[in-house]
Amino acid sequence: MSKSIISKDEDYSQWFNELVIKSDLAEHSAVRGCMVIKPYGYSIWEKMQAALDQMFKDTGHSNAYFPLFIPKSFFSKEASHVEGFAKECAVVTHYRLKNDADGNIVVDEDAKLEEELIVRPTSETIIWNTYRGWIQSYRDLPLLINQWANVVRWEMRTRLFLRTTEFLWQEGHTAHATAEEAIAETEQMLNVYADFVENWLALPVIKGKKTANERFAGALDTYCIEALMQDGKALQAGTSHFLGQNFAKAFDVKFSDRENKLDYVWATSWGVSTRMMGALVMAHSDDAGLVLPPKLAPIQVVVVPIYKRQEELENISAFVSELKKNLHKRSIRLKFDDRDTQRPGFKFAEYELKGVPLRVAIGSRDMQ
Amino acid sequence: MSKSIISKDEDYSQWFNELVIKSDLAEHSAVRGCMVIKPYGYSIWEKMQAALDQMFKDTGHSNAYFPLFIPKSFFSKEASHVEGFAKECAVVTHYRLKNDADGNIVVDEDAKLEEELIVRPTSETIIWNTYRGWIQSYRDLPLLINQWANVVRWEMRTRLFLRTTEFLWQEGHTAHATAEEAIAETEQMLNVYADFVENWLALPVIKGKKTANERFAGALDTYCIEALMQDGKALQAGTSHFLGQNFAKAFDVKFSDRENKLDYVWATSWGVSTRMMGALVMAHSDDAGLVLPPKLAPIQVVVVPIYKRQEELENISAFVSELKKNLHKRSIRLKFDDRDTQRPGFKFAEYELKGVPLRVAIGSRDMQ
Repeated sequence: MSKSIISKDEDYSQWFNELVIKSDLAEHSAVRGCMVIKPYGYSIWEKMQAALDQMFKDTGHSNAYFPLFIPKSFFSKEASHVEGFAKECAVVTHYRLKNDADGNIVVDEDAKLEEELIVRPTSETIIWNTYRGWIQSYRDLPLLINQWANVVRWEMRTRLFLRTTEFLWQEGHTAHATAEEAIAETEQMLNVYADFVENWLALPVIKGKKTANERFAGALDTYCIEALMQDGKALQAGTSHFLGQNFAKAFDVKFSDRENKLDYVWATSWGVSTRMMGALVMAHSDDAGLVLPPKLAPIQVVVVPIYKRQEELENISAFVSELKKNLHKRSIRLKFDDRDTQRPGFKFAEYELKGVPLRVAIGSRDMQ
Repeated sequence: MSKSIISKDEDYSQWFNELVIKSDLAEHSAVRGCMVIKPYGYSIWEKMQAALDQMFKDTGHSNAYFPLFIPKSFFSKEASHVEGFAKECAVVTHYRLKNDADGNIVVDEDAKLEEELIVRPTSETIIWNTYRGWIQSYRDLPLLINQWANVVRWEMRTRLFLRTTEFLWQEGHTAHATAEEAIAETEQMLNVYADFVENWLALPVIKGKKTANERFAGALDTYCIEALMQDGKALQAGTSHFLGQNFAKAFDVKFSDRENKLDYVWATSWGVSTRMMGALVMAHSDDAGLVLPPKLAPIQVVVVPIYKRQEELENISAFVSELKKNLHKRSIRLKFDDRDTQRPGFKFAEYELKGVPLRVAIGSRDMQ
């Protein structure tokens, strides 16, 4: 089969790249470091999103949406934050193109922004600038908000899903009246991530705390979950940060407590990204292809008809159509592959490559 | 109540702005023309998204994700396309910040991109450049893909939801073997939009075709749905474009047909955006606040307890808790507002402002 991939024992890194591309999860785009997530890969990401989103809502969080762009000045309000991100920022400087004298499309120098805008690498600054207007009193707390978004970090060396210039993620940003509450939230969300990765990705994780050097830029403490990959290395699968009052101070977000005293708010942020797709691939797959946990598999059962005469195919089709309806009622995702352009053996290899958990061949006698 | 808004007869436009802000749907951000969608507003958008997404899947479409950035050169490959969008493009020119001699954060001139990147105002160009690798034969067609994404069009005059620099939307991009199939797809998706707006927003629409001047930049035909607002004006609520072979030619996307002849692919694109949130507000609401169709209302029933003694509140709470569980099983969203910091009258006015369809007061005698 033309789709065969290198053995993971031979070159683990190359095996990962080939598998992601040949199983139709994602590919490199024409924009350096940015990927295209293909329908098969995106369908897995959607299932991850739906499960996580429900877990966030079950723990009292709501979704909101904040701007893609962050004014440069905001970004530098928290000293260690800008230190951590300044070297990998996409910067918007102009807002118009024009035709030059030769008819080429060029940037219109007359449309230069007074203040440059950064494409968000993370949203603490714009969110805390917004929270200043939302929080006055202890009655407004806790504020428990999540955002599903795209972010950009200009990476020099990129790998599909694991490290890309643009990636998809969720970022939770919460505000609390006390340090204890904020720490409890940080720990709660780490546990949510651990539960999710264990129950949906079927991947046990180790919970831990980062050293001072590895902490998120602006955090007092960064908790993380790490999962073991088949090459014996650990992969960071999610982080949860206790931000203390750093961002509240930088953006002047105060609240009046029950005694009517003013104090700065306590903050957390936490996120997981499309990097989890990388963890999923690296954790379970083998030289024959993806191995997907049934909960996340876009196709859970594939049925391939085995027949010689057209009449046989029609009987099998009618049988499978009924079966599909019954399984659909039980939320089981079945695909019937009746293409007449490929042989059964080709189809089986393809679905093995794509990690379909259950592959079934049905011939006339099997239906009896 | 402090949240009262101007009458819509007095100033329809001002009424809309005040209502959107005071009912907690959205607000202006610190970035010119960009909005923050607040949890209450985002919750309505999520319901719109879920319903539309199911309708797209029911008509055979899959979701995927394409890069936020588009190389400037791609953008100008289809002549009328760049003409239509060049004047409102956010342009990324650099990928790093640095400290200057005075310690200020400035753009690092050494990190200038060789080719500028445009923040997508729409994705035809990057998608058709990608489709070239995905389409070889008639067997690869039709290709039916949708993307949920943020886009940026640099608007000089902005209004919350109706016209913002960044907005959220979906964009469908399909590829077909014949013009007839592509036109049928264009019409099908217009009908999906019309059904959605009528059945979920409770808003009848007129379907029509744009004049040549009003067409999408690069389309042969643009179909649209328009809805009547309370000021007697029509609001465009969705568009569906027949793109002919324009983008296939610009990006050299050919397929071999059943007779093994090569031809360019036929294309459509179609989209609706957070502008629909504006249509929803403008269509039904009144001087007292939002009026939300029950299917889209984040809270469908609010219960306000009427009591004097703490013991009464406890009885009411127990009663409502049971009621809530029963309604939850039937997917009815009930909120019990037992805040002791506000009086019932204040609460009722607040939920009227927020458009909660059913507001119920429960006292001790009501439970018998």
